[in-house]
Amino acid sequence: KKRYSITLLPGDGIGPEVVSVARNVLKLTGSLEGIEFSFQEMPMGGAALDLVGVPLPDETLSAARQADAVLLGAIGGYKWDNNEKHLKPETGLLQIRAGLNVFANLRPAVVLPQLVDASTLKREVAEGVDIMVVRELTGGIYFGKQRGFGTNEDGHEFGYNTEVYAANEVDRIARVAFETARKRRGKLCSVDKANVLEASMLWRKRVIAMAAEYPDVELSHMYVDNAAMQLVRNPKQFDTIVTNNMFGDILSDEASMITGSIGMLPSASLGASGPGLFEPIHGSAPDIAGQDKANPLATVLSAALLLKYGLGEENAAKRVENAVLNTLNKGFRTGDIYSAGAKLVGCKEMGEEVLKSL
Amino acid sequence: KKRYSITLLPGDGIGPEVVSVARNVLKLTGSLEGIEFSFQEMPMGGAALDLVGVPLPDETLSAARQADAVLLGAIGGYKWDNNEKHLKPETGLLQIRAGLNVFANLRPAVVLPQLVDASTLKREVAEGVDIMVVRELTGGIYFGKQRGFGTNEDGHEFGYNTEVYAANEVDRIARVAFETARKRRGKLCSVDKANVLEASMLWRKRVIAMAAEYPDVELSHMYVDNAAMQLVRNPKQFDTIVTNNMFGDILSDEASMITGSIGMLPSASLGASGPGLFEPIHGSAPDIAGQDKANPLATVLSAALLLKYGLGEENAAKRVENAVLNTLNKGFRTGDIYSAGAKLVGCKEMGEEVLKSL
Ligand SMILES: CC(C)[C@H](C(=O)O)[C@@H](O)C(=O)O
Ligand SMILES: CC(C)[C@H](C(=O)O)[C@@H](O)C(=O)O
Repeated sequence: KKRYSITLLPGDGIGPEVVSVARNVLKLTGSLEGIEFSFQEMPMGGAALDLVGVPLPDETLSAARQADAVLLGAIGGYKWDNNEKHLKPETGLLQIRAGLNVFANLRPAVVLPQLVDASTLKREVAEGVDIMVVRELTGGIYFGKQRGFGTNEDGHEFGYNTEVYAANEVDRIARVAFETARKRRGKLCSVDKANVLEASMLWRKRVIAMAAEYPDVELSHMYVDNAAMQLVRNPKQFDTIVTNNMFGDILSDEASMITGSIGMLPSASLGASGPGLFEPIHGSAPDIAGQDKANPLATVLSAALLLKYGLGEENAAKRVENAVLNTLNKGFRTGDIYSAGAKLVGCKEMGEEVLKSL
Repeated sequence: KKRYSITLLPGDGIGPEVVSVARNVLKLTGSLEGIEFSFQEMPMGGAALDLVGVPLPDETLSAARQADAVLLGAIGGYKWDNNEKHLKPETGLLQIRAGLNVFANLRPAVVLPQLVDASTLKREVAEGVDIMVVRELTGGIYFGKQRGFGTNEDGHEFGYNTEVYAANEVDRIARVAFETARKRRGKLCSVDKANVLEASMLWRKRVIAMAAEYPDVELSHMYVDNAAMQLVRNPKQFDTIVTNNMFGDILSDEASMITGSIGMLPSASLGASGPGLFEPIHGSAPDIAGQDKANPLATVLSAALLLKYGLGEENAAKRVENAVLNTLNKGFRTGDIYSAGAKLVGCKEMGEEVLKSL
């Protein structure tokens, strides 16, 4: 019997509700597939701030490091919004990404046939969209060391950050992107601002250099402003997108909203070795927290990515994905993806339906 | 009789065609409104590179500085795409923005009732969208002096740029934004990434401080990733958006594509004093250049903004705007905004129809 240890980071807002559903799904999937999971829940984000005064306690990071994979719910809430930077829930998220060195963030944006009407885009534009955004996650302007505040010669206060990429940082994310594109439809679009930024010029140069190793992948380049437009104009033109941390933050969120169902979208953050970090792309939704209204499917699908990319358990992953699709086919919908004629359920009931479909 | 001197920068691709139409529109409008224009055409972008080897010749910048207003077509093309940075057409654009010190870039994204079907968004989502993006244009990561390439301790080449804003730079763009919002529907959304970036924290602090002077304007704040989503989810929630140079580049292009008719959208770039720079937001479209297919209306509407913001000639501006609306009401459409039943015309004919409607 295979055994894996999973660190669960429920976090804030709806995080605990959705992680609890995903935990049950993993457990049952394991018993059906001959896998035994041990789960360890650790505090992070606002929950950790309230408990021990920091957004990522050392114990949480070391538990995560020792696990086979990490499943995160969501972090943040109004309560901590005006905290100083080092006491923000978001800082804990950046710390765990850096601490696990998960430099590759995979964010699929898929329009399921069952949910095409949830998109604000016209049916013919949204139908069949299937994009994978590969976002660099531990570099760029998020982590550039030259940052802070100062006063200039004219006596004005200023704030600054540094966008910086080294060749090896670009190479490792580009490799993940080429490999990902190769397993998909073989098209990779690298997004940058190489007409203005030196950091982007280096990015583009390295991506082009690596293309020689992937003659089967069709590589294109697009400026970030144009990419933001093209995602709205014709999202189907994209297969795999690779981009830096900041542009990836913006474009992956835009792409996810194009699907209209961000309550359905998972993400995987992977390093060269060590445990991966899996989380829904939605936030902590403090306004509906604790009301059994959250859609747990993004977290359940994150658990499927955990099985696939984190543990290499492809069969178990497929089982979870199929259970989600079956649950949708049976007509069950949480409020965020509800449409006339469907069966409206809460977070818990949606979880139970997925268990039945497993 | 009032006299104004206008510097025309036709630029590359479709630039000359659309500027020629706008020039005729300005001329006729002037004679109807008792205004005399003198026009001076100067080379810029790829055209200037081919002619004199730099993307912004000194003569062009000084002519622009001495003019009452500057009208730009579009710059760039495949031919110069692989030029070194200082020999790119785009560099000429950044140089003229800096040279004229036009720090405030106003980019309206309006869905005209006549063109609502051009949007890829569902009718009920697109209908009535009327957003003004106020983008900071001469600061931030585009101009941060700490930039370039280097080699790190591990021997890896790196590229870097600096995002930097000083209090006075934020203040002057925030003031333009509050004033703009006040003249519109009184709602201002400031977009930043203050949960991660120090430059954004300073931005937000200064915007909040200025809000005290504008009690009639309802101020909100949004993170850039969320803004990229909300523009797709429900663009009607926005009135005026203010943001930095990089985020403004991305979000204004996204907003413009939401309207579905970027061939219709003008922009105005203004400084504290001196001539403003007016240009369509679309690019040089090298693939249709010289084929009389371009939509000149974005440039004609840029000329309207030139009249309004650049010269204070509100009546003349209204006349041009009405002529454009009348031309659309008569059913004339260029290819980019064509829909069944309309009268398909080329760039020149569209221009003639606008002249008739003046
Ligand atoms: C919360 C925030 C720091 C984070 C980011 O910007 O990376 C979030 O937006 C995300 O995309 O996971
Ligand atoms: C051409 C490029 C340098 C420019 C920019 O990024 O500002 C363009 O995208 C724009 O928005 O006017």
